[in-house]
Amino acid sequence: MRSKIRRAKQDDLQPVAGNGLLDRRALFRASAAVAAGTGFAGSANAVGPLEVEPWMREVGAPFAPYGQPSHFESKVVRTIGTLPGTIGTGASRTPLHALEGTITPNGLHFERSHDGVPDIDPDKHQLLIHGLVRRSLSFTLEALARYPTVSRVAFIECGGNGGALYQKAPLQLGAQGLHGLVSCAEWTGVPLAVLLEEAGVDPKARWILAEGADAASMSRSVPLAKAMDDAIVALYQNGERIRPGNGYPMRLLLPGFEGNTNVKWLRRIKLTDGPIMTKDETSKYTISLPSGKAQQFVFPIEAKSLITRPSPGLRLNGAGIYEISGLAWSGYGRIAKVEVSADGGKSWAEAVLQEPVLPVALTRFRIAWRWNGGPAVLQSRTVDETGHAQPSREQLIAERGNNTIYHYNGITSWGVSESGELTHVYA
Amino acid sequence: MRSKIRRAKQDDLQPVAGNGLLDRRALFRASAAVAAGTGFAGSANAVGPLEVEPWMREVGAPFAPYGQPSHFESKVVRTIGTLPGTIGTGASRTPLHALEGTITPNGLHFERSHDGVPDIDPDKHQLLIHGLVRRSLSFTLEALARYPTVSRVAFIECGGNGGALYQKAPLQLGAQGLHGLVSCAEWTGVPLAVLLEEAGVDPKARWILAEGADAASMSRSVPLAKAMDDAIVALYQNGERIRPGNGYPMRLLLPGFEGNTNVKWLRRIKLTDGPIMTKDETSKYTISLPSGKAQQFVFPIEAKSLITRPSPGLRLNGAGIYEISGLAWSGYGRIAKVEVSADGGKSWAEAVLQEPVLPVALTRFRIAWRWNGGPAVLQSRTVDETGHAQPSREQLIAERGNNTIYHYNGITSWGVSESGELTHVYA
Repeated sequence: MRSKIRRAKQDDLQPVAGNGLLDRRALFRASAAVAAGTGFAGSANAVGPLEVEPWMREVGAPFAPYGQPSHFESKVVRTIGTLPGTIGTGASRTPLHALEGTITPNGLHFERSHDGVPDIDPDKHQLLIHGLVRRSLSFTLEALARYPTVSRVAFIECGGNGGALYQKAPLQLGAQGLHGLVSCAEWTGVPLAVLLEEAGVDPKARWILAEGADAASMSRSVPLAKAMDDAIVALYQNGERIRPGNGYPMRLLLPGFEGNTNVKWLRRIKLTDGPIMTKDETSKYTISLPSGKAQQFVFPIEAKSLITRPSPGLRLNGAGIYEISGLAWSGYGRIAKVEVSADGGKSWAEAVLQEPVLPVALTRFRIAWRWNGGPAVLQSRTVDETGHAQPSREQLIAERGNNTIYHYNGITSWGVSESGELTHVYA
Repeated sequence: MRSKIRRAKQDDLQPVAGNGLLDRRALFRASAAVAAGTGFAGSANAVGPLEVEPWMREVGAPFAPYGQPSHFESKVVRTIGTLPGTIGTGASRTPLHALEGTITPNGLHFERSHDGVPDIDPDKHQLLIHGLVRRSLSFTLEALARYPTVSRVAFIECGGNGGALYQKAPLQLGAQGLHGLVSCAEWTGVPLAVLLEEAGVDPKARWILAEGADAASMSRSVPLAKAMDDAIVALYQNGERIRPGNGYPMRLLLPGFEGNTNVKWLRRIKLTDGPIMTKDETSKYTISLPSGKAQQFVFPIEAKSLITRPSPGLRLNGAGIYEISGLAWSGYGRIAKVEVSADGGKSWAEAVLQEPVLPVALTRFRIAWRWNGGPAVLQSRTVDETGHAQPSREQLIAERGNNTIYHYNGITSWGVSESGELTHVYA
């Protein structure tokens, strides 16, 4: 976890891939860039004495019971898209371009809802487990408080995230608009397997149905094996009780499975011998293939990555060295490698992964880039520990067609203009 | 990271320490408790069909740009203590008893301020590096955005946290009131060493002075070695920009060093040949010893742990099996072990540590306990990877006396009454 500052080596500033991508060591040896007079140094200024700013001349604000962001950050919010004529059917998207690290703060975690956010009284809410069990059981929050808990950091990504990239022309949106339906938090709750074993699993049970307590009764079927493996009835998100928009007072966490199987406002789990074929897994969340057939029950999120800084909405301010920063994730396990290209995929350089790299969690990657002030196309691609490699957009569409909006994990390309502006391009 | 549910073994429910502490495996084999009819099961109910609650009968709330906790959680807030006649000189304390996992949500991170929270315009704020350097440099936020960044999860603890336990009688407060000046977040920023190397460190430099842009000009001296090792000029907290109360737009992060050396609203770092002896390191944050001498510049936080659930403010609802949950941390590195006692320290059982255990981060521990309904005294103690062991309160006071409020890392004891109430006791 040390910052590993070492003495400068001029070699670190030699490009290792086309159009100015620098060796990973450059991030830890920025002083080399300074010594060379070509690097990060361009943005620091030699100065005289500090001014005493107005906020140092008066007593500051009092303490607050629950803190909020600075009013100067009022633009760092989720963007909201709803179906026409509705207020709570749609999604709100995480401002990935404005965030850093891997944890999404609770106020900015993406939300996808099918009929608004229910205002659930936690003292009245119960979780029912029934169906192919020895005995039906119901759990209040007070009851669950006595059960063993586990915590894990996990991303959740909506199955429809990135769906716009199936379109024939690149939609002019940025990281938030195109891919903002992915977030990451530390979740804490009771392993679902503990509750299922208490109810007594009938040997004939093969699937579970999970249902939410929203007005849409959003419900999904998933294999029992997942429920018994690493599923959690999550009660806490980044330390505090789950926010209403993310399932207060409890949601199902199925690490790595597409977002809406992580059923929010969880009220009922029924053990069954097969999938129930609810409206939410037949009318939606199925992948229409070119053959006319459809893939149903495609659960794990495939390996994917994305450059968040720079990205549209941000801009480069003159040639020189920049840090490129982004996120990678896979529903199958840990991220093994991320590579970055500055020449539209002709050549690639390996990025630094922020430690610790956790399974099924957002992983931050970074690399140094010397922008020469000319046009560039920035891309990232990743491979997870199972060997699954993020495909190019062309590869993905060749395989799957583009008559769907689900499970887009192809490469995203940001074009850089000579003025330092970024746009979404296909390359 | 799997939940590791295995078949029940009755042996797991045999106590491994006095007064009902169970083997660590009990947490993963709760079904054993159920099979035995003595365990967690006591709190689940067999039931009929689910009711359709009112919140399922109407469209829910719309999406919000920035989310907030449920109104049912309005009591989960920081408590505020200020010096008489002031509004911003004091501290706000994290509700540790109501939180789980290891990340503190940004709205509940503790704050300690010496003259309120300044309302800093990030476009006007600058960080000056001067003193024993080759050239003074000043960094705007825009300038820092081009530098290499790192992220790390780290706790911050006020040097005065737990100070009430030096008092002769146990103050009737809980985890929040006694120890709520510790929190943990994922911090992202620029390694300070990168900036110092750019300024050019004079060989005569041995210390740095770090100064905040608050009305108190809060300032501390720390050794240059720490600044060059793992110090970060932190810009982001759990993904988003640091909150105003925690130093917006930038603070110094000195992993493991007592809280107020992690200077908030950082505006100036001066390289010096020795400590400056500011008001904040002479009038405060020094430890008065029984000999009449004082320890100054006691930087790292010593190994410490605390049971948060159950703790005063919560209560046990009848005999049976409970999960005991708490936090351990050390400024010297990783937590190696946590033990729990239910009989006031006569016997101890090892707790489960939540993985991954990160250096200088809060570490969640858990253990199963079968409460027999009688009086009990709950304690935890920890050892870090350097071998530093958390002392008993008696050991700590024997060594240090009680003419101080700083660096209390002795054991905390919660008394359990037959009615299930918890109180702070000395034992």
